[in-house]
Amino acid sequence: MPSCPDFGPKPHLGYTASLIDRAAHRRGEAAALAADRRAGAYVIGGEMIVARKQASGGEPLFALQEAQALAATRECVLLGFRDGVPHFGVGIGKEAVEGLKARDELLVTDLRSIAVQGLVAPEHLPPLAEAKALLAWHARHRFCANCGTLTDVAEAGWKRICPACRTEHFPRTDPVVIMLAVRGEQCLLGRSARFASAMWSCLAGFVEPGENIEEAVRREVHEEAGISCGRVVYFASQPWPFPMSLMIGCHAEALDRDIKIDPELESARWFDRDEVALMLLRKHPDGLGTPPPVAIAHHIIRAWVEGDVVAFD
Amino acid sequence: MPSCPDFGPKPHLGYTASLIDRAAHRRGEAAALAADRRAGAYVIGGEMIVARKQASGGEPLFALQEAQALAATRECVLLGFRDGVPHFGVGIGKEAVEGLKARDELLVTDLRSIAVQGLVAPEHLPPLAEAKALLAWHARHRFCANCGTLTDVAEAGWKRICPACRTEHFPRTDPVVIMLAVRGEQCLLGRSARFASAMWSCLAGFVEPGENIEEAVRREVHEEAGISCGRVVYFASQPWPFPMSLMIGCHAEALDRDIKIDPELESARWFDRDEVALMLLRKHPDGLGTPPPVAIAHHIIRAWVEGDVVAFD
Repeated sequence: MPSCPDFGPKPHLGYTASLIDRAAHRRGEAAALAADRRAGAYVIGGEMIVARKQASGGEPLFALQEAQALAATRECVLLGFRDGVPHFGVGIGKEAVEGLKARDELLVTDLRSIAVQGLVAPEHLPPLAEAKALLAWHARHRFCANCGTLTDVAEAGWKRICPACRTEHFPRTDPVVIMLAVRGEQCLLGRSARFASAMWSCLAGFVEPGENIEEAVRREVHEEAGISCGRVVYFASQPWPFPMSLMIGCHAEALDRDIKIDPELESARWFDRDEVALMLLRKHPDGLGTPPPVAIAHHIIRAWVEGDVVAFD
Repeated sequence: MPSCPDFGPKPHLGYTASLIDRAAHRRGEAAALAADRRAGAYVIGGEMIVARKQASGGEPLFALQEAQALAATRECVLLGFRDGVPHFGVGIGKEAVEGLKARDELLVTDLRSIAVQGLVAPEHLPPLAEAKALLAWHARHRFCANCGTLTDVAEAGWKRICPACRTEHFPRTDPVVIMLAVRGEQCLLGRSARFASAMWSCLAGFVEPGENIEEAVRREVHEEAGISCGRVVYFASQPWPFPMSLMIGCHAEALDRDIKIDPELESARWFDRDEVALMLLRKHPDGLGTPPPVAIAHHIIRAWVEGDVVAFD
């Protein structure tokens, strides 16, 4: 293997390393905690985060009362405590968000842009992810899937209960496998039509009922690229609040080389390690690139380029 | 470390190693596939599996027509293909299951008992898990969580679509972390009140929105036993169709020893490696035991006893 270029220090995975203590046992005290004058809140409407404009970007943490004065609250969920101070997520409607865009003192931007461009201090990303995922679940799950009745919020937003059939509903978290299939000095990257032009990434897909992570990895690589995989090695995981996934990153041993692309993918091909190194460094002669460090795909790819994973051969 | 006893060959994880090719691209052909006279089906009602009685246990695979003649079908889902033959899961009502218990030629038992007692050939466990998880989702998700309307089944049971608001709903798979916290020659086991008497196991809990696997492991061990953990190492994963979980097994480095038990747990304590070895072998002097090999907890514990995991010290 040729010597590996220096990619600089390893940042932690985007949206991880939360400073919030979720303190689940205190979710029954939501009303009292919301009355705490120190309580802070993040304000979210659909994909959009509301922040106060600052020279360096935005400050997304409001006092709870201030947050609730911005627009009508749809749901208010308890994220947990930071240094003993309760932090909430406040969900507002999409129309309300549009209205706030007109206000000069506010920065209203989608979470992906905020994370990629570093528009808020990094410490805010994990609670923003927590709030966004939880509020996105509420926004699409106000009715009982068991009987169709409008449900009530309970446990500070961590449960919904049906007043008719008493079914309890809990927030969804959808496990997704995201993997780099590798074979010798080459790895398999794909691109979907919705990717930014010239970006190539790992293949990925939802874990289905009745399969484990390793089986899901093999199934997805086979479905999307027609490649059979043998050994699968877990690498790391990341919450991905678009809308509410858990990304489970792996490396997989490709057993063959003949790609057969699924129609849902725009393209997939093998890349040499040296070429991928240039893509990571954004020095590729044709401008090809990989996802940014906020995405686990970047780290899965980088770890392989750096030789920092199990060698399958 | 003292020498490790011989636990015998390592069985694969329960409900994994499926022989079914899910062939997701063929889910649009459900009607035509159901007309295939070779089509097979598993019959499930709630927790119960219906099988034909045999000397050695049960044969859970029926011809699809035969399956649908047993009781009124609630949902019929395409599991995939085995050797080119379509296999389905047929969901029936709980009352219908009760009725079938009276029939001499049938064995009607819950999936846990079937798996633990080996009542069906092992090759049937993965498709039974797939069918049970998917049918359990349908049974509790017939209405649109977004607007309350009764939804239509699509894609051979892999989707439900709301005829009113057009929201698409996909089967849930709930990621659960299950972990063994270890410190030197000791590991932390707990028991909940619902466990069989004298059984001790790993701690476990659902991954929440906005956290990754490693954070969920640390949060759960702290919530349930008051123990802080440092490094977390992924071990293996297993589908767990009770009702629709993905168990993500890890080992974790315990940073302290003072246990503070969560009221939801009946007990938790440190066990020496030698004592756990006796529990795995079912030779513990007080009759204490671990979960059976069909559960990933068994393998997580065994791997640590065998020294087959990263040593944290």
